[in-house]
Amino acid sequence: MPRDSRYDILFEPVRIGPVTTRNRFYQVPHCNGMGRVYPDSMIAMRGVKAEGGWGIVSTEQVDFHPTGDVTPYTEARLWDAGDASVLGGMCNAVHEHGGLAAVQLVHNGQDTGNIYSREVPIGPVHRPVSWKNHPVQARAMDIEDIRAYRRWHRKAALRARSAGFDIVVVYAGHDGSLPAHFLARRHNQRTDEYGGSLENRLRLYRELLEETLEAVGDTMGVVARFAVDELLGSDGLEWGNEGHDAIEMMAELPHMWDVNISDWDNDSMTSRFAAEGYQEEYVSFVKKVSSKPVAIVGRYTSPDTMVSVIRRGIADLIGAARPSIADPFLPKKVEEGRLEDIRECIGCNICAAWNNISAPSRCTQNPTFGEEWRKGWHPERIRPRESQAHILVVGAGPAGLEAAHALGKRGYEVTLADARSEPGGRVARESALPNLRAWNRVCDYRLGQFALMTNVKLYLESALTKELVLDFGADHVVLATGSTWRRDGVGRALRQPIPGTEAERSFSPDDIMDGNRPPLGSVVVFDDDHYYMGSVMAELLAGEGYKVTLATPGNCVSSWSEYSLEQGHIERRLLKLGVEILPRHLVRAVNDGVIELFNTMTGDTVKRYGHLVPVTMRLPNDELYYALIATPSSLMSVGIKSVRRIGDCYGPATIAAAVYEGRRYAEEFDRECDSDGVPFKTVKHVLELGG
Amino acid sequence: MPRDSRYDILFEPVRIGPVTTRNRFYQVPHCNGMGRVYPDSMIAMRGVKAEGGWGIVSTEQVDFHPTGDVTPYTEARLWDAGDASVLGGMCNAVHEHGGLAAVQLVHNGQDTGNIYSREVPIGPVHRPVSWKNHPVQARAMDIEDIRAYRRWHRKAALRARSAGFDIVVVYAGHDGSLPAHFLARRHNQRTDEYGGSLENRLRLYRELLEETLEAVGDTMGVVARFAVDELLGSDGLEWGNEGHDAIEMMAELPHMWDVNISDWDNDSMTSRFAAEGYQEEYVSFVKKVSSKPVAIVGRYTSPDTMVSVIRRGIADLIGAARPSIADPFLPKKVEEGRLEDIRECIGCNICAAWNNISAPSRCTQNPTFGEEWRKGWHPERIRPRESQAHILVVGAGPAGLEAAHALGKRGYEVTLADARSEPGGRVARESALPNLRAWNRVCDYRLGQFALMTNVKLYLESALTKELVLDFGADHVVLATGSTWRRDGVGRALRQPIPGTEAERSFSPDDIMDGNRPPLGSVVVFDDDHYYMGSVMAELLAGEGYKVTLATPGNCVSSWSEYSLEQGHIERRLLKLGVEILPRHLVRAVNDGVIELFNTMTGDTVKRYGHLVPVTMRLPNDELYYALIATPSSLMSVGIKSVRRIGDCYGPATIAAAVYEGRRYAEEFDRECDSDGVPFKTVKHVLELGG
Repeated sequence: MPRDSRYDILFEPVRIGPVTTRNRFYQVPHCNGMGRVYPDSMIAMRGVKAEGGWGIVSTEQVDFHPTGDVTPYTEARLWDAGDASVLGGMCNAVHEHGGLAAVQLVHNGQDTGNIYSREVPIGPVHRPVSWKNHPVQARAMDIEDIRAYRRWHRKAALRARSAGFDIVVVYAGHDGSLPAHFLARRHNQRTDEYGGSLENRLRLYRELLEETLEAVGDTMGVVARFAVDELLGSDGLEWGNEGHDAIEMMAELPHMWDVNISDWDNDSMTSRFAAEGYQEEYVSFVKKVSSKPVAIVGRYTSPDTMVSVIRRGIADLIGAARPSIADPFLPKKVEEGRLEDIRECIGCNICAAWNNISAPSRCTQNPTFGEEWRKGWHPERIRPRESQAHILVVGAGPAGLEAAHALGKRGYEVTLADARSEPGGRVARESALPNLRAWNRVCDYRLGQFALMTNVKLYLESALTKELVLDFGADHVVLATGSTWRRDGVGRALRQPIPGTEAERSFSPDDIMDGNRPPLGSVVVFDDDHYYMGSVMAELLAGEGYKVTLATPGNCVSSWSEYSLEQGHIERRLLKLGVEILPRHLVRAVNDGVIELFNTMTGDTVKRYGHLVPVTMRLPNDELYYALIATPSSLMSVGIKSVRRIGDCYGPATIAAAVYEGRRYAEEFDRECDSDGVPFKTVKHVLELGG
Repeated sequence: MPRDSRYDILFEPVRIGPVTTRNRFYQVPHCNGMGRVYPDSMIAMRGVKAEGGWGIVSTEQVDFHPTGDVTPYTEARLWDAGDASVLGGMCNAVHEHGGLAAVQLVHNGQDTGNIYSREVPIGPVHRPVSWKNHPVQARAMDIEDIRAYRRWHRKAALRARSAGFDIVVVYAGHDGSLPAHFLARRHNQRTDEYGGSLENRLRLYRELLEETLEAVGDTMGVVARFAVDELLGSDGLEWGNEGHDAIEMMAELPHMWDVNISDWDNDSMTSRFAAEGYQEEYVSFVKKVSSKPVAIVGRYTSPDTMVSVIRRGIADLIGAARPSIADPFLPKKVEEGRLEDIRECIGCNICAAWNNISAPSRCTQNPTFGEEWRKGWHPERIRPRESQAHILVVGAGPAGLEAAHALGKRGYEVTLADARSEPGGRVARESALPNLRAWNRVCDYRLGQFALMTNVKLYLESALTKELVLDFGADHVVLATGSTWRRDGVGRALRQPIPGTEAERSFSPDDIMDGNRPPLGSVVVFDDDHYYMGSVMAELLAGEGYKVTLATPGNCVSSWSEYSLEQGHIERRLLKLGVEILPRHLVRAVNDGVIELFNTMTGDTVKRYGHLVPVTMRLPNDELYYALIATPSSLMSVGIKSVRRIGDCYGPATIAAAVYEGRRYAEEFDRECDSDGVPFKTVKHVLELGG
């Protein structure tokens, strides 16, 4: 079906200096945890984006000199011709599908410790590097150093051209690059021509732009990627102040503007903290001061919103990192009039988290992300069925939904049964918690796909017993029955139930999601989970009027969410809601309404009154599995060839992991897998000293 | 010179099942941050150890199945034949120099999140994985899973043999492997034959040993690496209890015992927290219950102590990780009667820290560690001089000492001048602080080497001015003049001086090391450095009777020292000394003896009386450098061809970095280096999708 003409505007070509992009879909530079360490994975992933219709497909940040080495992060490199050859593979993959390939040249300056290169870090002034409080200082660059730095950048732009890139992105974003450090008043206390006035602080960035244009601007688009606000008030750059003035001073210099807010925690806010289009107020001024094309980001997944962004004159290109991860084929689906096929980003930042752990990114919505090369998975294609098998999937949570969806696309007969009256399992339940509404897109997308398939049947309010499964007549049974939060405090830190949690009612997240509540008053959320759930419980209950204490053995609230760029946002929100936060605390006992805690650092005892909400760990709902496998003969007699667990029912983890396990089941179905071997292709090195 | 006969015992061969090691020097398995990600670097490094005389050279931990994937750590892998081929390169390198190659097979079970492999983690019971509170659970293994696990281990042993290894180390150490998790009461609540009694909890480990012996024990030595105490009292394994009984139950099973304490923080205690030989009391019982050779570790660097360990019947082999990093040629030096050449480990754990950051380890004492392949540096050899140059090194701290030492070995005429009356610079000053005495080995080793060279002259009490340098007559000048701690609080968190620090006396670490003190009373150490110095200041002053508060913007005291395995030890020591710890606090002002702090989480203001000791950042002592380069003509007129800064004078960092910079100066001297290029060999991949 052809596309609706109202979306035509999204498919207008845009000139970027000497190059022209086929449409307004711009996959902005985004890290992905693959980069230089898993180059084939990175290349294949970028190729799929071009195949999916993105006009411009960018690299992640690409380091261009050993003084800006970001180890342990895996970002790509353009240190030399060898690196250029690797990135050439990405250019080929993008060009093959008609996209423009863009490279973002980055030097992290005072932010990075050069842990691998062992070079002395550099910055505008002497300062300890910020990365993890690493015990190394950046040294103040003198004029000779600045000259060398500009030369390195210029040479890198030339290497980028030789690699085959069409666009070079000159970067001063996220409070994380050397030109951004020069620009910031709080970082730059220089007294020479690179410090003081805005013009002086901007000098380095302007020089980089000018020199890049001079070096490669005749054949390559030169994009300025620039943060205009840091959400720090007058302590940082503000769009109504220096952010505005900076753009104005360079308005016509680059071939294109890619404007955002800083730092990364703000630029990539999760759906829990920001809605689609949240950057508009900060960047909409840019088109008023520059005639050059402007790109905006803001987790856009709705083509109607995108059209509105263009029509309202906010921007000319729709930038996207996360939406392009969740659906690499978003542009093609709009183009082909298949809006119902769009797999919308849920804004959870699992992608960023894995990158920040220095591992290949994964995606909650798109389980094929990162698997394009090593497992040969594709976001839109899956090999057809190899038998007439009928598969019963028990549980319509994220694992069951994706298994049914992918098996359905393969052409198998699938029956999906869930005991509840609404589908989605934990996704439906958790998306009803404060500010997690977008998470239900995991469910929405798959239900939408079921509507297009006749071979997948969903039955709700269908609790299955062993007898019902045996009677049903499926060839294979997949149990995706989820997991249940413990109520007794057992988890990482506590290996025995908290005394008193049996006698006195405590409330697990499941209890709360079921609508159960302690009497209005005080509660202690004991968070030994460290991701979102503890803080969401606190947020929910505080919002309902409870007096909430959040105690955690972690060094801060939701410590793991630093990886998902949420820790600061979570902490600020809880404090604003009046939640008391007790880091490094464990619960010793619950007794007569008194919750006895102790500080694991000092040993001091702390008492709070009220009810306990332990958020610690889950137990798989695997009773049906064990009931079924207890009598292999009865399975055989009814023709059930296999019984398998997937998702939380197998190993409680993230929603992303559940979706992945569902996909994996479908991908591996009817294929022999050796559990002793390695189920994917791995990186191979050219060894000088190999065996 | 031949070795002293009293050391003969160290060079007796020891039988380990079917293989025999040439001597008692056993480089135990140790991580190094290179592993599978930097395989050539790892192989070359291991080869140098064998060249240096270690009888057994082991791998780091080697993962053997995708369910035990330790990404983001870089440890080696033996997942398949391709991995075996890489490790074969290490075996060749070790065999070339007459060593035995050992492989340590490890599966981290419930400790790891399988972040790259995306497999569901496994463990004795359902439990969230411990690594960084990663939001994924390990699932309880059933009997079928245990059977599969044993099969994976057996197959890995066979792959190890095909790779060329002589020894396989079966590992239950550091509270970090699956058999150790099964063994620990606090981790294992199983009710089947793998849980409950010690015999049951030990079953899996015993099976692994038996099956490894059965599979490869006819040609390979099978070593049991086993922790006998966890320093947790009755909450963990104790050498006087289950630790003892476990060894007794398996006494004659392995070909050799490699016994230590757990977890890694305890096994690899720094010199700040434990002296050479600190594990003797825990492991000396093993030889009483087993007739098999026993290896011990404990940061042994003194051959006399090693002889005593053997003679007293404590152990048969001297295990070493860190001492073998600091001096890969330790055995050869003992063998050749060159004890004065031994470069003793200072026990700082910078090696562990870099590994824990997922980067190639470095060493404070041995700047060539990790550079053997990529830069071609060798711990004992350096290319001869290429000119008759005379080099003046100003400053006999770690950078200056190493530059002079390495230039001296190259054969250059070197003059080393220091303003102070004792050599060592910061090393001498810091090693005088509580429990850092061993750090002075950085100085001791180099002074010892100078004594053997006629071309290096050291002048103390020789403060040099510009005029004196110009008059001196050197061809090249190297400034290693160190750095000075700021006294005003400026650092990472605070970019402007703390109000009041000018008017009211505050004391920097340099002030304290100079012997200056506030009047006895209260002090606030403000630690925005996050490594050791803040805590050492607190320790020193508390020991002298001050009432000490340590305030830090970090989430805990000395947060970076988690990488060096010291954070828990530091915190416990400070609390024992009565130091008040205020995490997440900044200093707002100092006024009339009142130090006003505030909590960066809650915003609450806290006041303390007394003096401030800011530990924030340093400024290079580079006045002499700038004075010299200000007049290039005067340099030229006296024939000075270059003036360079190294160490803290260039970029304040760790002692390890200063030593490295000194070495680098010497290695690169008389060689053209392209500052725009990459000064070392990098990893290359075999690409399917390359450009």
